[in-house]
Amino acid sequence: MWFLRLNMTDQTFKLEEVPTTYKDLGGRGLSSSIISAEVPPLAHPLGPFNKLAFCPGIVTGTAAPTSSRISAGAKSPLTGGIKESNAGTSWSRDLASMKIKALIVEGQPKEKDRFSGVYLVVNNAGAPGVQFADKALFDQGRKKVVDALMTHDITKPKGALNTYGTAVLINILNEAGGLPTRNFSSGRFEGAAKIAGEAIFEGNKQRLGKELYNHACSPGCIIQCSNTWHKPDGTEHASCVEYESDWSLGANCGIDNLDDIAELICLCNGYGLDTIETGTTIAVAMEAGVVPFGDSKGAIKLLHEMGDGTPMGRILGGGTEFTGRAFGLTRVPTVKGQSMPAYEPRAVKGIGVTYATSTMGADHTAGYTIATEILSVGGKADPLNPEGKAALSRGFQAATAFIDSSGHCLFIAFAVLDIPSGLAGMVEECNGVLGTKWTTDDIGRIGTEILKKERMFNEAAGFTKAHDRLPEFMAYEKLPPHNVVFDVPDKVLDSVYGEL
Amino acid sequence: MWFLRLNMTDQTFKLEEVPTTYKDLGGRGLSSSIISAEVPPLAHPLGPFNKLAFCPGIVTGTAAPTSSRISAGAKSPLTGGIKESNAGTSWSRDLASMKIKALIVEGQPKEKDRFSGVYLVVNNAGAPGVQFADKALFDQGRKKVVDALMTHDITKPKGALNTYGTAVLINILNEAGGLPTRNFSSGRFEGAAKIAGEAIFEGNKQRLGKELYNHACSPGCIIQCSNTWHKPDGTEHASCVEYESDWSLGANCGIDNLDDIAELICLCNGYGLDTIETGTTIAVAMEAGVVPFGDSKGAIKLLHEMGDGTPMGRILGGGTEFTGRAFGLTRVPTVKGQSMPAYEPRAVKGIGVTYATSTMGADHTAGYTIATEILSVGGKADPLNPEGKAALSRGFQAATAFIDSSGHCLFIAFAVLDIPSGLAGMVEECNGVLGTKWTTDDIGRIGTEILKKERMFNEAAGFTKAHDRLPEFMAYEKLPPHNVVFDVPDKVLDSVYGEL
Repeated sequence: MWFLRLNMTDQTFKLEEVPTTYKDLGGRGLSSSIISAEVPPLAHPLGPFNKLAFCPGIVTGTAAPTSSRISAGAKSPLTGGIKESNAGTSWSRDLASMKIKALIVEGQPKEKDRFSGVYLVVNNAGAPGVQFADKALFDQGRKKVVDALMTHDITKPKGALNTYGTAVLINILNEAGGLPTRNFSSGRFEGAAKIAGEAIFEGNKQRLGKELYNHACSPGCIIQCSNTWHKPDGTEHASCVEYESDWSLGANCGIDNLDDIAELICLCNGYGLDTIETGTTIAVAMEAGVVPFGDSKGAIKLLHEMGDGTPMGRILGGGTEFTGRAFGLTRVPTVKGQSMPAYEPRAVKGIGVTYATSTMGADHTAGYTIATEILSVGGKADPLNPEGKAALSRGFQAATAFIDSSGHCLFIAFAVLDIPSGLAGMVEECNGVLGTKWTTDDIGRIGTEILKKERMFNEAAGFTKAHDRLPEFMAYEKLPPHNVVFDVPDKVLDSVYGEL
Repeated sequence: MWFLRLNMTDQTFKLEEVPTTYKDLGGRGLSSSIISAEVPPLAHPLGPFNKLAFCPGIVTGTAAPTSSRISAGAKSPLTGGIKESNAGTSWSRDLASMKIKALIVEGQPKEKDRFSGVYLVVNNAGAPGVQFADKALFDQGRKKVVDALMTHDITKPKGALNTYGTAVLINILNEAGGLPTRNFSSGRFEGAAKIAGEAIFEGNKQRLGKELYNHACSPGCIIQCSNTWHKPDGTEHASCVEYESDWSLGANCGIDNLDDIAELICLCNGYGLDTIETGTTIAVAMEAGVVPFGDSKGAIKLLHEMGDGTPMGRILGGGTEFTGRAFGLTRVPTVKGQSMPAYEPRAVKGIGVTYATSTMGADHTAGYTIATEILSVGGKADPLNPEGKAALSRGFQAATAFIDSSGHCLFIAFAVLDIPSGLAGMVEECNGVLGTKWTTDDIGRIGTEILKKERMFNEAAGFTKAHDRLPEFMAYEKLPPHNVVFDVPDKVLDSVYGEL
């Protein structure tokens, strides 16, 4: 197994045998370990000592379902802390098949301070493929995971995600009063039904003359939640209209027109912008009066300014917190410099605990308590009740760190948290590849070890418990329709990682 | 003695008797104590829970020389930490004469998120004046301070400051290789002589046909270091052309034309912009290619954009670090979000220790080791040698906190650090007002107590030793002409306040 290092200073590469301490790691566990070990915590994120590590998951490249994931790790220019981004893609399988456990981009050309893109051409012809320590065990585990995914209402074919995509959540969160609207000034959007997953399904049906189910974002996915929005003439407009994008560029900007939202998503994709951070940034600019809430054409114009790098575009390109600061606003929904996603923490307290305490900033995928608080997956919890949410978030954050390492998409959690054999199957898959003897009891321990590494990096980079807090306005401004504030006490937030 | 509270929420005011715990405090010691006690460390600086405290010094309002100082304290929107700004003004005397120890602005009107100015109208007709515990002791101390100021070469009439103003330092720092030039890319500026204090004195002489000595910035000052630059026709252009402004808008931008520098200073004064932060911000914009280094007309245009609040102006208005981030630069000379002033820390190591460890960000006035390293005041130290600089900075920071509380201008330090009777006189003045029994041995203890309060506030606001660091590029980029990096070890930086 190899580390492939690409040195940007002198344009050389190096293949290194993977150190034995890293042999049971993959995905997020590996990328976070590499960044922790090799990047000085006080390095400037755009300077010569930051690195970018791409790591396939443990079972990536095998026939394990929904597992073509890559973990990208670095010190983040947005948060100033460690960052892991996890995505589905075909080339993660290719790397894994060539026994490359990590592709590490390091160094910096002499010509500094210029932005650049990453272009990878991967050719795995003749690659040996992923090796198994125990193929039979892997196959046994794989079958259990497949069965769980094919059975659960959320993940099965023609189930919620395959039919409506992640945007199925628009109506659900709106109903719960937890859909952040017009820069987090309400938890309910009067235009929700017009942008919901159901509206996407029905709109496509009308424009295409047939029912359209969703597709896989990467090879080997059973869930297949990626939708495509079509223009009135039936041609493709944007893929995928995720819940998060639909919300951030829609409800959170007061925009209820799916065609305009699709156009905004296309522009984000084209310019290489994160749709969540971009939508929340535009909403903050709307609050500052740059364009009015609901002005979708104005939003499209602002997105072009970001792409063109005009002065206004450079403000918006700095993200939500940066834009809030440029305009002197106090209502800026960020933690550790990263914008909140599509769940109002005042109306769903557990996700607020995750936003506050995650190593990644306000990231729902870091500990998706929504599963339990809103979808009743893995148990039930009242979203408005602050009690017990530290433990809930802690459990989700640790399990997530494990799943993000396994190589599976986090969405398998919907199935495997409800179906115990699925959870066991996921661990058996990993054991089948690595030769480890893990049980489901190890998931929390292994996940916690990863989180601990990430938090130690952040601590050395200057983060303290003062950074594990939601923005102040959420403690004194009541959110309609429930008229609630975020009332999880600081000491409860501190207890999430108190034991690390 | 009174606290006068102005409540902006309901436009009311309240006079409170000063709590006995605060009775021996004044200036910075008092403003920092009030902010520490009353502002939640995680309050949004522009939100309803920040406060602004204006505190005259202990001897302000008396006949003590050079003592018409006001200390303004708040949680800073620039650094996110506690902030004390100390200035000469006539109304500090007026407040003190009315026995107002602190003017505290608190609350926020309902109409939020709009910038505003502070306009004070003070009428002290019939005010009782400052009361003395021991007038004879005060008079004795006052005489010693006056004698020191009238004797020392730097502070005496027609001495260095009265003749050339603070800009006398331009040639001195340039000679030492410590005058930051073109965004801290060199320690020597080829145009230094054209913008130096000597050039200001000679230029005025030519334009006015006579020698012009400087004036007092506030009533009762013996040093009188405020200069005025005159236009070719002999009319006033800018007052004062301080060393820091002359450098930041001059050498650091590659500008060597005093008339253009004066115009930039006028614009900063008119728009209410800090000249140091503005000059270093423009230099960073120049490094980003917005206008070329040396383009003074371009700089004037950028300053108007700041005043007009254009998108570019909002970037620049966010300060040096903010502008560096907007343009993705790594060479950004800030600590805790605040720009460095006119001393290159790679060439003058002690001031680098102050920049790194001060509670205020990169502030030379927080611990002016330049006095010893460059001017041989209060001893001598080799500026290029990193040895012994933690102790030097620690001593200066503590003494400064005391002087900033006494009500004296920090510039009396030049005299009283070299003339022991002057230092004793300063303490006797305070004892004469307060009835305390302090000796010069108490200066360090009292100063350290103030610094400790400030650092505790910052710690609760999220600062750690990771924030007590200079920017990374200064550790790997060699500064001409001495080709030196900043090489004070981190553990030495941590030792400055290790004992607090």
